[in-house]
Amino acid sequence: MIERSHSRARRAAALVAGTIALAAFTVATPMAAFADVSDNGGATRNDHDDMTAALRASIVDGPAKNVILLIGDGMGDSEITVARNYAYGAAGELPGIDALPLTGQYTTYSLYRDGVNKGKPDYVPDSAATGSAWATGTKSFDNGVSVDIDGNPQQTLIEIAKANGLRTGNVTTSEIQDATPAVQVAHVNARSCYGPDSVTQCGDDALDKGGLGSISEQLLDTRPDITLGGGSASFQQSAKAGPWQGETLFEQAEDRGYQVIADGDELAAVESADQSAPVLGLFTPGNFPVRYAEHEATIGGADLPPVTCAANPDRLPENLSLKAMTDKAISLLDSDDEKGFFLQVEGASIDKQDHEANACGQIGETLDLDEAVQSALAFAEADGNTLVIVTADHAHTSQIVDSVTPGLSIALTTHDGTPMKVSYGTSPAGGSQQHTGSQLRIAAYGPGGANVVGLTDQSDNFFTMANALELDRDTAALSAGATIELADTTVAPGADLEITAEGLAGDRQVTGTIESEPIEITKTDVIDGTVALTTAAPSELGEHTVTLTGTQSGAVVTTTFTVTADGNPTPGSSETPATGAGGGSSTAGGGLSGLASTGAIVGPFVALAALLVAGGAAVLVIRRRRQGHTQG
Amino acid sequence: MIERSHSRARRAAALVAGTIALAAFTVATPMAAFADVSDNGGATRNDHDDMTAALRASIVDGPAKNVILLIGDGMGDSEITVARNYAYGAAGELPGIDALPLTGQYTTYSLYRDGVNKGKPDYVPDSAATGSAWATGTKSFDNGVSVDIDGNPQQTLIEIAKANGLRTGNVTTSEIQDATPAVQVAHVNARSCYGPDSVTQCGDDALDKGGLGSISEQLLDTRPDITLGGGSASFQQSAKAGPWQGETLFEQAEDRGYQVIADGDELAAVESADQSAPVLGLFTPGNFPVRYAEHEATIGGADLPPVTCAANPDRLPENLSLKAMTDKAISLLDSDDEKGFFLQVEGASIDKQDHEANACGQIGETLDLDEAVQSALAFAEADGNTLVIVTADHAHTSQIVDSVTPGLSIALTTHDGTPMKVSYGTSPAGGSQQHTGSQLRIAAYGPGGANVVGLTDQSDNFFTMANALELDRDTAALSAGATIELADTTVAPGADLEITAEGLAGDRQVTGTIESEPIEITKTDVIDGTVALTTAAPSELGEHTVTLTGTQSGAVVTTTFTVTADGNPTPGSSETPATGAGGGSSTAGGGLSGLASTGAIVGPFVALAALLVAGGAAVLVIRRRRQGHTQG
Repeated sequence: MIERSHSRARRAAALVAGTIALAAFTVATPMAAFADVSDNGGATRNDHDDMTAALRASIVDGPAKNVILLIGDGMGDSEITVARNYAYGAAGELPGIDALPLTGQYTTYSLYRDGVNKGKPDYVPDSAATGSAWATGTKSFDNGVSVDIDGNPQQTLIEIAKANGLRTGNVTTSEIQDATPAVQVAHVNARSCYGPDSVTQCGDDALDKGGLGSISEQLLDTRPDITLGGGSASFQQSAKAGPWQGETLFEQAEDRGYQVIADGDELAAVESADQSAPVLGLFTPGNFPVRYAEHEATIGGADLPPVTCAANPDRLPENLSLKAMTDKAISLLDSDDEKGFFLQVEGASIDKQDHEANACGQIGETLDLDEAVQSALAFAEADGNTLVIVTADHAHTSQIVDSVTPGLSIALTTHDGTPMKVSYGTSPAGGSQQHTGSQLRIAAYGPGGANVVGLTDQSDNFFTMANALELDRDTAALSAGATIELADTTVAPGADLEITAEGLAGDRQVTGTIESEPIEITKTDVIDGTVALTTAAPSELGEHTVTLTGTQSGAVVTTTFTVTADGNPTPGSSETPATGAGGGSSTAGGGLSGLASTGAIVGPFVALAALLVAGGAAVLVIRRRRQGHTQG
Repeated sequence: MIERSHSRARRAAALVAGTIALAAFTVATPMAAFADVSDNGGATRNDHDDMTAALRASIVDGPAKNVILLIGDGMGDSEITVARNYAYGAAGELPGIDALPLTGQYTTYSLYRDGVNKGKPDYVPDSAATGSAWATGTKSFDNGVSVDIDGNPQQTLIEIAKANGLRTGNVTTSEIQDATPAVQVAHVNARSCYGPDSVTQCGDDALDKGGLGSISEQLLDTRPDITLGGGSASFQQSAKAGPWQGETLFEQAEDRGYQVIADGDELAAVESADQSAPVLGLFTPGNFPVRYAEHEATIGGADLPPVTCAANPDRLPENLSLKAMTDKAISLLDSDDEKGFFLQVEGASIDKQDHEANACGQIGETLDLDEAVQSALAFAEADGNTLVIVTADHAHTSQIVDSVTPGLSIALTTHDGTPMKVSYGTSPAGGSQQHTGSQLRIAAYGPGGANVVGLTDQSDNFFTMANALELDRDTAALSAGATIELADTTVAPGADLEITAEGLAGDRQVTGTIESEPIEITKTDVIDGTVALTTAAPSELGEHTVTLTGTQSGAVVTTTFTVTADGNPTPGSSETPATGAGGGSSTAGGGLSGLASTGAIVGPFVALAALLVAGGAAVLVIRRRRQGHTQG
C-alpha cells in the first residue's frame, strides 16, 4: 500500500494565522503518512478539513513588489500528472507546482495572420504566439514574437517593468533566442530570427534591412538586468550593420557594459546586476542538456518492460540547474529599496522532450521546473510581497493510457512501484509530436494571485502581472518630462561636447542630431532614465542645436550651444549650462512605433568620434567604447 | 475578426454587492463585443479588471442546504475546449461550465485490487472507481461500484444524505445502471451487474447468492426520491430471489410505492417526489440517443473538408433533455422546509462518444451538460444556499491538433468559422478510444465551494459535499434511538399484529423475528425513519418477543406481546401499548457491514401472510403487497 503526506492541510492551517497561505510547501513525506490511500478518506489531500479559511487567507490584494512568472513549456495537465506520478506517486505532490493555492484554467489559442481567417483563432498555438500573449497582452500568430498580427511591436513586461524602474530578469534552459524567452526582449515576425546570420529568417527585421535586429541583438537593446540560459552560438555571430558591424554580439555586449559570464562558477561569483552592468550568461551553444537520459517511446513500447529514468551524464553542473539560476536571479534582483522586479523563468524542454516522445526527458524537465518553483515560493513566502505564477504556454501530446496504443508509447516504473504507460500519438515515429489545443492550468501565490482563478485567457495573465506591479503602460509618458543639459554651452570646433539627458525612463535608447552641420548622434543606451554621451562639436562657428529623441517614446529634448574659435564665450553671454525640457516638444506618440535602428550604438564609457560615410552623405557618428579601438 | 463578450467582469462585479459572485452567467453575446481579439487586451476574459474582490465574494462558508453535482463523463480539459471552440469560439464561454468562479484540479487514479500491486495506484481509472471515490470517499478498483478494494460496501452520498433526512436525486443520460449513476445507489464488485439476468457478472452479489442484488435491485432498495435516465431493459428482467421472484423490477417498483413513469409527458406531470412515492423514470432501454448525428474520425480525416455537426433525428424530445430532467428534478427536490437535497446529474455520453472517436457526438453531449449546468446555476443563484460542483470522472482521448495525425482524426468548422482538427490516437480504427490519466478540472459555486480550489483528489470531493451538507456519516447512530410500538399487546392466534418502529433514519430497511415461534419478518422499507408493518400473530399462546433489526445500522428494537385464545388480555395486565427503545440493545456496529439481504421484501401497503418453506425450516414470511396476489 502506498502512503502519503497529510502535510497540506496542516501547513495551510498553520500559515493562515501569519503569512499568506501556501496550499502546500513541503515534499511529500511518505514515511509520515497516517492513512492508506485505500482507506475511506485515505486518498484525500485536504484531510477532510474545510479549506475555506485557508483559501481566503491565500487571497491577498495587490500590488505586489515583485512578480516571478514560471513557465513550463508544453506543460499541460497531462504532463504535470505524468511527472507527479513518476516522481512522487499518484497520491503525492509536486512540492512546487502543486503547492500554489490559487488555480484556474486559461485558453491559449493563437490567431491567423493572413488570408480569409486573418484575426481568427488558430486552435493550436506555438510558443511564440502564446508567450507574446502573456508578455504583451496581445495575441499573435504562430511564429510572431511580441508583434501583433500586423507585425507591429507590442511592449513586453520586461520592457514596461524596466521603464517603470523595476529590475528585470529572463531565465531559461533553452537557447535564449527560443520563443519563450524571446517574447520578453524582442519583436520579430519570425521566431527563428536568432542572430545576424539568420538572414532569411529575419528578413526585414534584420538590422541591415532597417529592422530592429535579430532576437539576440534586440536582447542587447532591451537590456534586462539578468539574462541566463543557452544560445551562445548566436552571440558568436557578427553584426551586419551598425557600429559593431563585423564584431560578435559578445564583443558588443561587453562594449555596452554587460557582465558576460560563461559558466556556473562565474555566475556564482556575480555580486550585482543592474542597468550599468547587466548580467548575460549563456552557458551552452544551444539548449541545455536535459536532466534524464533519453528513453524514447516506441511502437508497442507500453508493452515492453517498464523503464526507470536515469541521470543524463551530460547534464550541466548543479550550479547551472534551473533552480540554481532562479535562486541566483532572485538574489540579484531582490533589494531592500523600493524597486521591485519582474522575473520570467522557463523550463523549456518539457516541450522539446514531448516533441521527441521522450517521457524521461519530459519528466526530468518538469521536475527541474518544479525545483525552480520551490525556490520562487520560498522567496515569496519569506518576502511576503511577491506574486508567483506558474503555468504553461500550450498543451502537448503525452497522455497516460491504460494499454498500448497504435502510436508511440512507453511504460515507466513510478515512485509507486506500478507501471505508468505514456502515449505519444500525434505524429509518426521519428516525427515531431504536436502541440495540442487544450486549456491549461494556471496557478498563483501572493498579492494579485486571485486573478488566475476561474477561466481566463493567456492574455489576461499579462494584465494580472502588470496590474499587480502597478505598471504604467504608457511608457511614453515616462519620458515626457525629460531634460537635456550640456557641460559647456560654448565649445571650440571639434572639442568634446558633453551631453546629459535625464527623465527618459520610457526609453531604452536615444538618437540625436546636431544642426546645422549634419551630425548624427547614433543610438545610445539610456541607463536608469539617463543618457550621458560626448560628441565632437561641429567645426562651423556659431549657434547650433542639439536634439535627442527617445527611441521608444519619441520624446524630444533640445538645447543650443555655440562654437567659437577658441571655445570661450563671446562677451556678455551666459556661463550657466543650457537646459532644455522635453515638455511640449516631446512627441509621446505611438510608443513602440518609433522603434527603428538608425545606425551605430553609443555606449556609456569611452568616447570615440569617427567620421563615416553613410548613404553618400558625410555624417559625424559618435561612438563611445570601453576601449578606444576603432572599428574594422 | 471574431468578437467576444465582456460580460464576465461586469456581471461578476454586479454580483459582488448582492449575492454570490458567478464568474459569468450569460451566453457569450458576439454582437455586443467592444474589442477585437487581435487588439491589445482584446482577448482577455477579465477586461483587465482586478478580480480579487469578485473571487472573495464567491467564497461563501458552508453549510449549504443543497448540493448539485454535475459530472461530465470523460470531460477532461481537452473535451471542454473542443466543445467551447466548436460552439462558442475559442474566445467564447460555455455559459454553464465556464461560469463557475472557483476552480481547481483533481487527481483521478484508481487502485489495484489484486496481486502484488494491491492498493497501489492504477493511473488510468474507469468510471466505476472514479465515481466511487466521490460517492463514498473511498478509492476503488476499476469495475468496483462503491466498494473498497476488498469488496466491502462503502456508504454513498445518496445513502448518507437520505439517512440525514435530505431529499435525493440521480439523473443521467445513460442507462441508470451505468457506473456513474450506479455509484450512488449500489455496491457491486462488477459494474456490469446490471439486473437479475446478469448472472455471470453479478456472481456473489446476486440476490439469489445472498448478495445485495444487482445494481437495478439495489437502486430500488436505496430509494432515491428521484431517479431519471435510461436503462429500462434491466427493469424488464425478473427477480431471481426474494418475494418478487419471477416478477419484473418494474412490477417490484410499483409494489414498493414508486411512481414509475415512461416518457417526458409523464415526467412533466409528476407533482411530487418523496420517500412514500419516489419517481423512477427510465425513458430508453439503454443509453439516451445523443444530440448530434455521428461524424466519426477517420484515418486522415483531419485533411478532409471540415464538417459541421448536424442534429440527431433520434434525439429524445426536448422535455427529456438533460436540462429538462435537471430542471424537473430540482423543482421536485427543492422545498421551503428545512430539508435540503443532494442531486447528481451526469452527462454520460461525452465519454461514450469519445470512446467512439465521434467528435460531434462528444461535443453535443458536452453542450447538453452545459445546459444542465446553466439550470443548476440559475437555481443556485436564486436560492443562495446551494453548492454546485461541475467536474468529470476521468480524462479522455480527444486532442486538438494542428495537422493530421497517424491515427483517427477529423476537422470541424467551428463557431469562429475556422477549422478545428481533433485527434483520437489511443486505439486503432474500430477500437474503443481509451480513458487517459490526466488530472482534471473541478469547479464550484456556492457555500463550501472553496474546497475545490488548488490540487485535490477525487475522493476529497466526497468530503467537500458531505461537509457542505453537514452530513452525519455515522448513520448507524441515526438509528440508535429507535423505538418500537405495537397497536395491541394482546392478540388472538393468527390475528393481525401491527408493528411500528420509529427513529430508524439510519436504515433503509429492517428485518425482524418473532420468538418463540420461528416467524421471520422479511426486509421492509423504512420510510422517513419509520417502518410500519402488519404480521400474523403466532399460534402458540403465551408471551412472545418481536425484534426488528435495522439492515444498515444493525440497531435492534424489541418488545413483547401476549397471544391469548380470545385475543383479550388476562385480568390485571396493562392495556397500554408496549414500547421498546433500541437504547443499549441497539447494535450500531459497522455501518454497512450489516448489509445482507435475507429474503423477501415487505412493502408498506397490503398485508399478506404466506407460509414458505426455506432451507428446510418452516418460517412464516410476512409480505405486504399493494395487491393481494400470491406469488407464482
